[in-house]
Amino acid sequence: MADGTAQRVVVLGAGFAGLRAVRRLARAGVRVLWVDRRNYHCFLPLLYQVAIAGLEPQEIAYPARSILRRLPSAEFRLAHVVAGDAAARTLLTATGDRLTYDYLIVATGGVAEYFGIPGARDAALRLYDLEDARLLRNHVLRVLEQAEAAEDAAARAALLTFVIVGGGPTGVEMAGALAEFRRHVVPRDYRHVEPHAVRLVLLEAGPELLSPFAPRLRERARRDLLERGVEVRTGATVTRITPDRVELASGETIPARTAIWAAGIRAAPVSASLGLPTGRSGRVRVDPTLRVPGYPHVFAAGDVALIDGAERLPQVAQAAIQQGEHAAQNVLRSLRGEACLPFRYRDKGSLATIGRSRAVAMIGRLQVGGRLAWVLWLVVHLVMLIGFRNRLVVLVNWAWNYLTYDFGLRAIVGADPEATAAVAPAADAGRQRAAGGSS
Amino acid sequence: MADGTAQRVVVLGAGFAGLRAVRRLARAGVRVLWVDRRNYHCFLPLLYQVAIAGLEPQEIAYPARSILRRLPSAEFRLAHVVAGDAAARTLLTATGDRLTYDYLIVATGGVAEYFGIPGARDAALRLYDLEDARLLRNHVLRVLEQAEAAEDAAARAALLTFVIVGGGPTGVEMAGALAEFRRHVVPRDYRHVEPHAVRLVLLEAGPELLSPFAPRLRERARRDLLERGVEVRTGATVTRITPDRVELASGETIPARTAIWAAGIRAAPVSASLGLPTGRSGRVRVDPTLRVPGYPHVFAAGDVALIDGAERLPQVAQAAIQQGEHAAQNVLRSLRGEACLPFRYRDKGSLATIGRSRAVAMIGRLQVGGRLAWVLWLVVHLVMLIGFRNRLVVLVNWAWNYLTYDFGLRAIVGADPEATAAVAPAADAGRQRAAGGSS
Repeated sequence: MADGTAQRVVVLGAGFAGLRAVRRLARAGVRVLWVDRRNYHCFLPLLYQVAIAGLEPQEIAYPARSILRRLPSAEFRLAHVVAGDAAARTLLTATGDRLTYDYLIVATGGVAEYFGIPGARDAALRLYDLEDARLLRNHVLRVLEQAEAAEDAAARAALLTFVIVGGGPTGVEMAGALAEFRRHVVPRDYRHVEPHAVRLVLLEAGPELLSPFAPRLRERARRDLLERGVEVRTGATVTRITPDRVELASGETIPARTAIWAAGIRAAPVSASLGLPTGRSGRVRVDPTLRVPGYPHVFAAGDVALIDGAERLPQVAQAAIQQGEHAAQNVLRSLRGEACLPFRYRDKGSLATIGRSRAVAMIGRLQVGGRLAWVLWLVVHLVMLIGFRNRLVVLVNWAWNYLTYDFGLRAIVGADPEATAAVAPAADAGRQRAAGGSS
Repeated sequence: MADGTAQRVVVLGAGFAGLRAVRRLARAGVRVLWVDRRNYHCFLPLLYQVAIAGLEPQEIAYPARSILRRLPSAEFRLAHVVAGDAAARTLLTATGDRLTYDYLIVATGGVAEYFGIPGARDAALRLYDLEDARLLRNHVLRVLEQAEAAEDAAARAALLTFVIVGGGPTGVEMAGALAEFRRHVVPRDYRHVEPHAVRLVLLEAGPELLSPFAPRLRERARRDLLERGVEVRTGATVTRITPDRVELASGETIPARTAIWAAGIRAAPVSASLGLPTGRSGRVRVDPTLRVPGYPHVFAAGDVALIDGAERLPQVAQAAIQQGEHAAQNVLRSLRGEACLPFRYRDKGSLATIGRSRAVAMIGRLQVGGRLAWVLWLVVHLVMLIGFRNRLVVLVNWAWNYLTYDFGLRAIVGADPEATAAVAPAADAGRQRAAGGSS
């Protein structure tokens, strides 16, 4: 199959959509080049577990080359695509390589959407990729270390305040996980930090948390969070974030050394450099078959795709998976000279967890909360994690955490050397927040 | 016990010596402040496993606060000590805090000693701490990715040449591990890289590998390495290292994009700022009781200590452990008004592994090589790893690796974003080598 004359499909992006597209095409024996600037597929729904030291980054990262081992017609290329010419069917990489294709599937995913809110990009931490999660973990551990040594009460309060911006599944799961961390790790590890001095604030600009869920489950999630001591504020619009506070439209200011941005998603910047038509939030516009209008050999799938005339799809793994599969199917149909079929999203349900033993789940007409939903969540996520190895290690870690209420992975490894070394003022600017110096 | 009037001991450093000293003192109920600029104790003998993607950083890192959970008289402080006044019994941190003590144990360990060889500090990778291991892993994975895409034969050869400088246990273990990686991972993952095109060169300036071992075992280790395709060169002095070659005193130049420095150790720089007498390689001079001459309330232990009149101790975990224990014992004796006792090193043996199923071991009069030594090595290291959790996860990973010849942790996470993003020319200067651009 993989001979030089066969048509070549380039799949850009190693997220859920890209992974599924590559697999489907390679299993059909089509010659595929899979390109990403990272060498792994990341299981994003568990990012927040990495952020609270419950899982290691590698446990939710699966090397692209391992995925391709049994797919001889597919190859992987670690490359940062910086531009594209869809008419000439070429892509340009940061190192100056030119990649050619017969068909292209753009599946470059999303990054944080800050809606132009001042300071959000620089002063807030994020939870959009594995590196974000690792930096967030190191940051959380560092502010707790600083709080442990801090003498000034105001500085200490800001160090112990964690503001999560965005009440979607990511924000809710992060808030619930931090509540667990506060309850089970803080009292054991930080003798000078009273757990009740740790303040968790979840801000949502809209009227409700978890808007895709049924009203009953939203209410359940809200109650679960309140029970766990999370301050939930709906209708709260953030107007500015600085390294030591979050400002709201109401005029209120929350002194906080940690703001976690989980409020929006836009297309990864590369999609704007491919010479393709884009729409809202930089997404690539596609027709209902996921094909880019005017470029019949280019498809887009997942968070980067904006389907003309369709309802807005939820930005969850299922939607990306289904689009990736569908784009690959349509490439296969095109290769056979058949017409492309329109994409139809089949909602397989929604799940969100709120710390230990609590979740909400909506699967078809089933609506459940509490422990049953949490077990459902656990099973679904373990099954979804690809690769026996990852599943086994994840299971060991989870079982351990569950039995001991521990979060064992608390070594601060691989932060900016400056930051690790000094616990010092603002050594690490940019994506990481200032690392201290108030004590 | 831990009241305000009790005498306070500060232990500086979370390596083997510091850990043992803290434990011994805290178990005796003495008030201890444990200070390190990292928040964990790292099991250094397994660093090379992290470097070849066999173990995760967290699997050999144990958070200091977890170690202290059952030791109420001890506290941990994440701080970078930048200076000290031994007469005033104070230490100064990077954030301006002043720490006072009644007794001090300096156990700040070692860093790379480059012997002034040009380029070594900037162009070579290292294997002295966990961050080194993480960077080395990312580097190895990155050069293989670049080689996979490289078209120029010379550039490709340099990308596939790994030079290890130093034939002690670290160098030998690293070479053996890379040979495993070449044999079992490269053929499966990198379709355009012939395993025999990957060149491994181990350079030792002295006449023998593994000088602390018996001649028979040195010969055995050498043979094992040669069998695994490692080029072993003894009597080879490095005169310069650049990002793309290693130069030898013989005039030979080895084109290589990876040089790993494992040739020497000197005291961590902080020991020079404590106002204490230092000797060879910046070590703190101590009398045979491990006490600093002129400062009866200051002790030093581990790689940072230079014992007057004593033979040079091997720089291994056992020596650090025994010195840490002994320094703590002498502090306890001083607190009771008793005289300090001289330190005597009890050689418990030496072990070095050479990849899968091969090792050399010298324990008392027992000298073994091969598989038996490897099993010994395995048991000793598993027993030594503190904490049930770490042991269990490490065991799962090892069992998996052993059964599958796999090294599963190959996602490049948390490198300098520039470097990850671009696989691009020289984005990451300094401690990391240039990341490519030859293709």
